[in-house]
Amino acid sequence: MTELGIAMIGHAFMGAAHSQAWRVAPRFFDLPLRPVMSVLAGRDAGRAAAAADRLGWAEAVTDWRSVLERDDVHVVDICTPGDTHAEIAIAALDAGKHVLCEKPMANTVAEAVAMAEAAERAAARGVRAMVGFSYRRVPALGLARDLVARGRLGRIHHVRAQYLQDWIVDPAAPLSWRLDKAKAGSGALGDIGAHIVDATQFILGDTIREVVGTMETFVTERPLATEHSGLSGTASDETGPVTVDDAALFLARFAGGALGSFEATRFANGRKNALRIEVNGSAGSLAFDFEDMNVLQFFDGTEDSAVAGFRRIVVTEPEHPYVGSWWPAGHGLGYEHAFTHQVVDFVRAVAEGTDPAPTFADGLRVQRVLAAVEDSAASGTWHQV
Amino acid sequence: MTELGIAMIGHAFMGAAHSQAWRVAPRFFDLPLRPVMSVLAGRDAGRAAAAADRLGWAEAVTDWRSVLERDDVHVVDICTPGDTHAEIAIAALDAGKHVLCEKPMANTVAEAVAMAEAAERAAARGVRAMVGFSYRRVPALGLARDLVARGRLGRIHHVRAQYLQDWIVDPAAPLSWRLDKAKAGSGALGDIGAHIVDATQFILGDTIREVVGTMETFVTERPLATEHSGLSGTASDETGPVTVDDAALFLARFAGGALGSFEATRFANGRKNALRIEVNGSAGSLAFDFEDMNVLQFFDGTEDSAVAGFRRIVVTEPEHPYVGSWWPAGHGLGYEHAFTHQVVDFVRAVAEGTDPAPTFADGLRVQRVLAAVEDSAASGTWHQV
Amino acid sequence: MTELGIAMIGHAFMGAAHSQAWRVAPRFFDLPLRPVMSVLAGRDAGRAAAAADRLGWAEAVTDWRSVLERDDVHVVDICTPGDTHAEIAIAALDAGKHVLCEKPMANTVAEAVAMAEAAERAAARGVRAMVGFSYRRVPALGLARDLVARGRLGRIHHVRAQYLQDWIVDPAAPLSWRLDKAKAGSGALGDIGAHIVDATQFILGDTIREVVGTMETFVTERPLATEHSGLSGTASDETGPVTVDDAALFLARFAGGALGSFEATRFANGRKNALRIEVNGSAGSLAFDFEDMNVLQFFDGTEDSAVAGFRRIVVTEPEHPYVGSWWPAGHGLGYEHAFTHQVVDFVRAVAEGTDPAPTFADGLRVQRVLAAVEDSAASGTWHQV
Amino acid sequence: MTELGIAMIGHAFMGAAHSQAWRVAPRFFDLPLRPVMSVLAGRDAGRAAAAADRLGWAEAVTDWRSVLERDDVHVVDICTPGDTHAEIAIAALDAGKHVLCEKPMANTVAEAVAMAEAAERAAARGVRAMVGFSYRRVPALGLARDLVARGRLGRIHHVRAQYLQDWIVDPAAPLSWRLDKAKAGSGALGDIGAHIVDATQFILGDTIREVVGTMETFVTERPLATEHSGLSGTASDETGPVTVDDAALFLARFAGGALGSFEATRFANGRKNALRIEVNGSAGSLAFDFEDMNVLQFFDGTEDSAVAGFRRIVVTEPEHPYVGSWWPAGHGLGYEHAFTHQVVDFVRAVAEGTDPAPTFADGLRVQRVLAAVEDSAASGTWHQV
Ligand SMILES: NC(=O)C1=CN([C@@H]2O[C@H](COP(=O)(O)OP(=O)(O)OC[C@H]3O[C@@H](n4cnc5c(N)ncnc54)[C@H](O)[C@@H]3O)[C@@H](O)[C@H]2O)C=CC1
Ligand SMILES: NC(=O)C1=CN([C@@H]2O[C@H](COP(=O)(O)OP(=O)(O)OC[C@H]3O[C@@H](n4cnc5c(N)ncnc54)[C@H](O)[C@@H]3O)[C@@H](O)[C@H]2O)C=CC1
Ligand SMILES: NC(=O)C1=CN([C@@H]2O[C@H](COP(=O)(O)OP(=O)(O)OC[C@H]3O[C@@H](n4cnc5c(N)ncnc54)[C@H](O)[C@@H]3O)[C@@H](O)[C@H]2O)C=CC1
Ligand SMILES: NC(=O)C1=CN([C@@H]2O[C@H](COP(=O)(O)OP(=O)(O)OC[C@H]3O[C@@H](n4cnc5c(N)ncnc54)[C@H](O)[C@@H]3O)[C@@H](O)[C@H]2O)C=CC1
Repeated sequence: MTELGIAMIGHAFMGAAHSQAWRVAPRFFDLPLRPVMSVLAGRDAGRAAAAADRLGWAEAVTDWRSVLERDDVHVVDICTPGDTHAEIAIAALDAGKHVLCEKPMANTVAEAVAMAEAAERAAARGVRAMVGFSYRRVPALGLARDLVARGRLGRIHHVRAQYLQDWIVDPAAPLSWRLDKAKAGSGALGDIGAHIVDATQFILGDTIREVVGTMETFVTERPLATEHSGLSGTASDETGPVTVDDAALFLARFAGGALGSFEATRFANGRKNALRIEVNGSAGSLAFDFEDMNVLQFFDGTEDSAVAGFRRIVVTEPEHPYVGSWWPAGHGLGYEHAFTHQVVDFVRAVAEGTDPAPTFADGLRVQRVLAAVEDSAASGTWHQV
Repeated sequence: MTELGIAMIGHAFMGAAHSQAWRVAPRFFDLPLRPVMSVLAGRDAGRAAAAADRLGWAEAVTDWRSVLERDDVHVVDICTPGDTHAEIAIAALDAGKHVLCEKPMANTVAEAVAMAEAAERAAARGVRAMVGFSYRRVPALGLARDLVARGRLGRIHHVRAQYLQDWIVDPAAPLSWRLDKAKAGSGALGDIGAHIVDATQFILGDTIREVVGTMETFVTERPLATEHSGLSGTASDETGPVTVDDAALFLARFAGGALGSFEATRFANGRKNALRIEVNGSAGSLAFDFEDMNVLQFFDGTEDSAVAGFRRIVVTEPEHPYVGSWWPAGHGLGYEHAFTHQVVDFVRAVAEGTDPAPTFADGLRVQRVLAAVEDSAASGTWHQV
Repeated sequence: MTELGIAMIGHAFMGAAHSQAWRVAPRFFDLPLRPVMSVLAGRDAGRAAAAADRLGWAEAVTDWRSVLERDDVHVVDICTPGDTHAEIAIAALDAGKHVLCEKPMANTVAEAVAMAEAAERAAARGVRAMVGFSYRRVPALGLARDLVARGRLGRIHHVRAQYLQDWIVDPAAPLSWRLDKAKAGSGALGDIGAHIVDATQFILGDTIREVVGTMETFVTERPLATEHSGLSGTASDETGPVTVDDAALFLARFAGGALGSFEATRFANGRKNALRIEVNGSAGSLAFDFEDMNVLQFFDGTEDSAVAGFRRIVVTEPEHPYVGSWWPAGHGLGYEHAFTHQVVDFVRAVAEGTDPAPTFADGLRVQRVLAAVEDSAASGTWHQV
Repeated sequence: MTELGIAMIGHAFMGAAHSQAWRVAPRFFDLPLRPVMSVLAGRDAGRAAAAADRLGWAEAVTDWRSVLERDDVHVVDICTPGDTHAEIAIAALDAGKHVLCEKPMANTVAEAVAMAEAAERAAARGVRAMVGFSYRRVPALGLARDLVARGRLGRIHHVRAQYLQDWIVDPAAPLSWRLDKAKAGSGALGDIGAHIVDATQFILGDTIREVVGTMETFVTERPLATEHSGLSGTASDETGPVTVDDAALFLARFAGGALGSFEATRFANGRKNALRIEVNGSAGSLAFDFEDMNVLQFFDGTEDSAVAGFRRIVVTEPEHPYVGSWWPAGHGLGYEHAFTHQVVDFVRAVAEGTDPAPTFADGLRVQRVLAAVEDSAASGTWHQV
């Protein structure tokens, strides 16, 4: 089988998740190409080498640009903070490498536009680009989209989406890069709000047209971090300013007429990773909470009302998206599986010569929504996306 | 409208629940007879008078026998401990009074046989008798029975029934009459186990044929109670022996082939009144928990498995049993409503000249199951009912 | 005991709920005055008489003004649509009658101001006024307020409140008075949105300072209703325009700094009466859903994280608000009990000579929030309350 | 790092789960030895080779005995049906190979005794043996055991354990080896009942002393399977007898005094893999359902009853068993992770020279319980374990 050489840039939280995906995907899914975990790029030689060893990459380098020149690298998998995405992705695409880029696609609309253009140029040459909105690949959300697409919800009236976390409710939690606008672009908005923007647009097959929102930083000064990765870190004695939002809320109108209510926060005490989506339509409703990720609630409004009710569909049947390749019914999946599914779809699209979704155009569309929310929060009025 | 004079014996926990039922039923339901809360009987004149005033009875007496002689009394409503049921019920029936008798119907099978015979004699004269298995009148359980009767579950394979409470998990909880075999007949078995025996037989439209079980008294000595009513009381300095079971568990086989697992306990820490029933059939399943009493879970096994799941039916639709007389959908009922429904069905049966269910024959059938469990617990083998 | 004569105006949905409350309150609670259900006022003589008989009122009249002149009437209980509240309440207060007025207090801020002024005048003469925001008296929400007041949640960051119903998702549902701006003032906003505005302000002990919102009418033309009461009605062949909102959504900022997200809709398919409130604070969180009304979820963020989690508090313990007067733990209450508690507090306040909450000033505060939402929906910008 | 060569026997359902565990464990956990997926043994050369390729094993053989002679094999991992366990395990241990053997350990007590003896002999030579009761390694159940061990539940009164599946509720489901007594030893009892026996003994740190039970085969004749693996298969036109139980129920008494109620069934329509355990003690309770596997419900009975309630602990905190090596809080694990944890503990024990639990002695103890249930089902009386 033809090999598909992968270079991964960044090797911490997402680095571990993506490595697991590359490693595991071919063991459970029939892939048309054999992914090879060729090289990992980090900034520090020692840490990169240790990571490559731990995560199972053949080699480690400290200059990500070097991987673009290698013939054994066909894919660049970007797992670094948002400020680096545009530069790496555009360079990789221009070098003829397929790109899987973590979300949010960029830190600004300008960057995202440039990336989408690069992706379009690349596509003309058969080079593919995809954004890592991994929650699309949670089977329950795939099923949600199917139900909407098949008309089981009828005309959509309401979308209610929240992404609730609590990892910095403690004012002593340190200033990781996620709290630094220069690195992260925004706070809760881009980090987790981006996911519910993408996921709801995906489920509805519709786009957000206008928004009105507000953003808030509850704790404006925090200890600097001596070391950090993913969501954890160690606090130092010095402090610095938090330059991003702790929470972002907005109302939205979809092009198709649905009303949306969105909230992303890192201050929802007791909610660890509660990505929740509820959709109400003229014929039915559905509800999802990532804290119970193998379940989709579905209300069929066409049933006799004496026996109608939200059904707790355990999304582990062979006919559910992706599930047939894993375990028997009732043997649930975990967080990382969505990343494996992402890699499966990516590899298949590359092999088939199609554009894997979410495309960079989709990523740009999300970016425009985030920007409209920020603009709205500043102006206090509705903004078109 | 013709009046139906009621005499109630006993006036504490059930006294309050039954009073509420008599008071409220005609306000929400069309009754063919107008219940009149004529007289309440207690043992202590002062307390009985106070109770009559509080609960809304026209009069109070201390000798329950006196009410049997009154022409303005047509119904005797027995709300006293189990040791008194047989004597009062038989006397009342023989005096031509309709009887609503609290559960468990009696403390022994012998008493229950005598009561069932008295009921049969009475029925021949148009006098009615009913046992107060109130949970039958929770709308969700009425719906459960309907679903089984309409074949929505197919052939029944499994019944799983638990009645879990924790009100005496504290060893300092006093020795109320419920812990005294002479008064109560048995402990958890007759007090709450009787409910799940009746409710499952009711839902299935089937009877338990044989059982094997065990009983346990975890705390064998407790402070005497200086005063008590319902589930609460005050402890004294002296102690006495607990003469009933704290918990009773048994396996059962129904006549129709279903396998049952039953458990009644007062030691399930944190479970306040968790009457839970799950039924699995060849075509579907249902599940109920009284801690969420307005909900019935229903699994329709004939659905496409991609969208099948336990449905959380909120049993508050107008077409659900009894519900149409109350509030709009979603405005749930409480504990006491089942007693109101009980009174409604009782009054209607009296007016129509039919036997209100559960009849004393049904009560006897439950009693035989309880006795078989006790026998089995003693012998260690299966016992026929 | 001194009697407290009640006159009730309107006798359909709320009429039944209030009647039940007046009837039942003295049976379970020690009241300093004995409520007497003296007279009911309706517009149609026949229907009023039938209602009085069914609901248990001594007398029926067709002119509500007549009750203001009666010496045996001390309380006027207003259970009519919003367009009548101001006129009746002001007349009653000026006539020296205590007033219990259903929510929303009025249809406009101007009316509400006049009512609050009348209440202030009346209070000076010992005459009391209260608004029927009944959900305040659901024990779980009383406990929620207690927890916030006792600092168990710390500084409040987030409030998430939804009131979701689906009773007009069917476009064939008829045009009841609730869909007529002249009668109802607004649609989902005033009918159910008012409840979550009041309830969140109550729980937080804080007020909403500014809002930005949007409103939507999904179905703009409906069959006229030939007859209707509460939430149900019969459709005729003619149609007419819907003049109110089907859904209203808004973001809010509380004076104390909390961010709020509110949504009221009658188009949430499958949600029957889902009044949901979630509050996140620096020390903990709580969550409530009226579809499981006897439960409050509480997260104590000060606990060791290995054993922390949202606790499902079954709010049926004797020490919970109002509960001790009812049944043993685990024997839940229903929809109507909040109305009974409302009457209990009202009667006690009248007897004690204090102002029962929510006062007309509270009602006005809610009205101002509703008006700010409407203004914001029209202008597309934030509005101060 | 020293290598630990693995040979896996059997390569279907458990083969895939164990392969994933060997592959993934060293990527997330610090292991003292480096597992090498050396060789896989199957019966058919073609299928074994395909499996080795798919699952990532260096080599495939058709004679499992051959692997015992290889120096590069240090561990034999048995993933075949129960009838083969004793022979393979004893041979492997006697050949000086560490053994990880799937559950139930054997098909009979006699086999299990021989295996336990072999394990004891082997231990004397530093060779280790472990049984694959994988659910012990679900973090929530590890936490459950911790809570019991730390006394947070006090004296244990009740254990309620169910393992509910529905994969053969359809009478047309084919006769896989799991329905053949010669291969499987028993049906639901050994396949899934064994798990709840082990898990409850593990959580309590106690053993079952006596049982009374019953077993049932609802569908006694089924189509033969043309092909099958794990829980799925293809039906042929011929039929054959089902020689095992579809369901097994029993009551139990633990040595420490707790009462247990157990049920294992493949006929619980709608329940896919509902391994449920509830434990009630004098100081608290806990509840678990594998359909929500990242959650443990815990009731702390020592709390003020006004705020006590079952806590939904999301068992994804760094301090929870195994979790710290995976993802941030709230990013749940799936079915396969328990197998990874099993491998981690196994490798560590091998390196440290300690006996990994559950030992073969533990496996034998479970086997004795299963045998006692079968004996009891036959005799209708209680049996000592
Ligand atoms: N799909 C999803 O659900 C998630 C997506 N993400 C996204 O993944 C990306 C990475 O986030 P995490 O892995 O959580 O962060 P992290 O802090 O755990 O790891 C970032 C990695 O990037 C490396 N890095 C940082 N700056 C670099 C540079 N200039 N050049 C090369 N390497 C650099 C760091 O050394 C580290 O290895 C972000 O865009 C984030 O939004 C993060 C978490 C979940
Ligand atoms: N349907 C249901 O769900 C329930 C049924 N019950 C049943 O109701 C009956 C009464 O139980 P509770 O009301 O809970 O008990 P309780 O202790 O609250 O009240 C018993 C009442 O009977 C009176 N009483 C006792 N012995 C008497 C005698 N010899 N003569 C006259 N009056 C006597 C007492 O003074 C007291 O008023 C029992 O059979 C019990 O099993 C109890 C609770 C719930
Ligand atoms: N607290 C709560 O949760 C609830 C409050 N409400 C409020 O209660 C009030 C009444 O609502 P419902 O009872 O649901 O309405 P409904 O339509 O069921 O009853 C209205 C009653 O008012 C009478 N009525 C109407 N116009 C009248 C007039 N001009 N003069 C005298 N009587 C008149 C009608 O004949 C009818 O008896 C409204 O303000 C509503 O917002 C309603 C439902 C729940
Ligand atoms: N820990 C757990 O939760 C689970 C444990 N199990 C246990 O794992 C074992 C295997 O079950 P599954 O993998 O589900 O079965 P399966 O039917 O999926 O696979 C059995 C494998 O064993 C092979 N095999 C059968 N007989 C053989 C023989 N005589 N020699 C060599 N290979 C042979 C088959 O070719 C197949 O590869 C059983 O003991 C079962 O009880 C199964 C499922 C879950």
